[in-house]
Amino acid sequence: MANSEIMTIPARKGRAARLTKGQAIKIINTHGHQVVDTWCFSLEDLTEFMSMEHIRPTLGKIFPTKGDQLYSNRRRPILFFEEDTSPGIHDTLMAACDDYRYGLLGCKEYHDNCTDNLHAGMRQIGLRAPETPSPLNLWMNIPVDREGRTSWGEPVSKPGDYLVLRAQMDCVVAMSCCPQDILPINGKAGNTVEAHYQILD
Amino acid sequence: MANSEIMTIPARKGRAARLTKGQAIKIINTHGHQVVDTWCFSLEDLTEFMSMEHIRPTLGKIFPTKGDQLYSNRRRPILFFEEDTSPGIHDTLMAACDDYRYGLLGCKEYHDNCTDNLHAGMRQIGLRAPETPSPLNLWMNIPVDREGRTSWGEPVSKPGDYLVLRAQMDCVVAMSCCPQDILPINGKAGNTVEAHYQILD
Repeated sequence: MANSEIMTIPARKGRAARLTKGQAIKIINTHGHQVVDTWCFSLEDLTEFMSMEHIRPTLGKIFPTKGDQLYSNRRRPILFFEEDTSPGIHDTLMAACDDYRYGLLGCKEYHDNCTDNLHAGMRQIGLRAPETPSPLNLWMNIPVDREGRTSWGEPVSKPGDYLVLRAQMDCVVAMSCCPQDILPINGKAGNTVEAHYQILD
Repeated sequence: MANSEIMTIPARKGRAARLTKGQAIKIINTHGHQVVDTWCFSLEDLTEFMSMEHIRPTLGKIFPTKGDQLYSNRRRPILFFEEDTSPGIHDTLMAACDDYRYGLLGCKEYHDNCTDNLHAGMRQIGLRAPETPSPLNLWMNIPVDREGRTSWGEPVSKPGDYLVLRAQMDCVVAMSCCPQDILPINGKAGNTVEAHYQILD
């Protein structure tokens, strides 16, 4: 099989894509400043999924980088972090944004959010996420100081940066172009944009 | 109502206790070096629970301390961290240990683990945890360096240290005396022991 065409994750929305073991997904930060929340579920049993709290103790660090295995909640490799053209700043600490979050940030109306995007993206391909795991927040820049204080940084990636995650089992990868436009995590301008992905054989 | 008698969390096992809004639970590190994995679920709907990945962005730090609200996955206060006689070193980063973890650490036979203890403790009082949230690991000492590397510290608490968590809604608190005796998180001797708790009115 050949590589797939390049697919769009629309601004502020979610998409999901199946991978067979050995295939990979290339996720492209087309405009350079867009955070993409990412999840991965085993297709054999969706209750096995990529888990930030299982990755951290296994890797012994809070920020996975190129060359790391990414582990499931059963402590098995589910994706291999094979390539990264960006400076390698991604986040494992923060929950996906949700409607509650935007309420606390002052929104009076419904706000697009990564939690709903996960579930919508999965439903769109006929699957149902059994819960909302803490996501791998690609390109999200959350510095942690010596006292454990976190801050909301801007992405350090540039247009066209991409990474490649290779499936270690048959799985589905869900992605959301984070619609956060109040905190500066998608850049101070709050300009939330599309990203792209491609399935690699 | 008066305070409850002091109850035991047996070494390597789990227990759960209901709290009505306004009641509190005092969790006692009787021997001083025992990590207690802790969860909290809303009694109105067990799918709302204390969530480490929602606490971190709300507090802006990775280690909650006395005086902090502890938030649910719907970003509401579920417990208030009211008192702490220990130096205040607790962990939000690491998943509960599980049988998979001990397999990776070389165990050939079943090993007691906090994940099974959560579910057993809940079942013991007639409830079922809908999933295994990442726990608040009381007294677990996980230093994080400037590069984001984590290490397995020993507890800095002393015998009799306790903390008080006050219910912000009707809820159930589940606790597990962590049976980790391979890594030094319960002290280098791997001497896993009991802890105690009391319900305060």
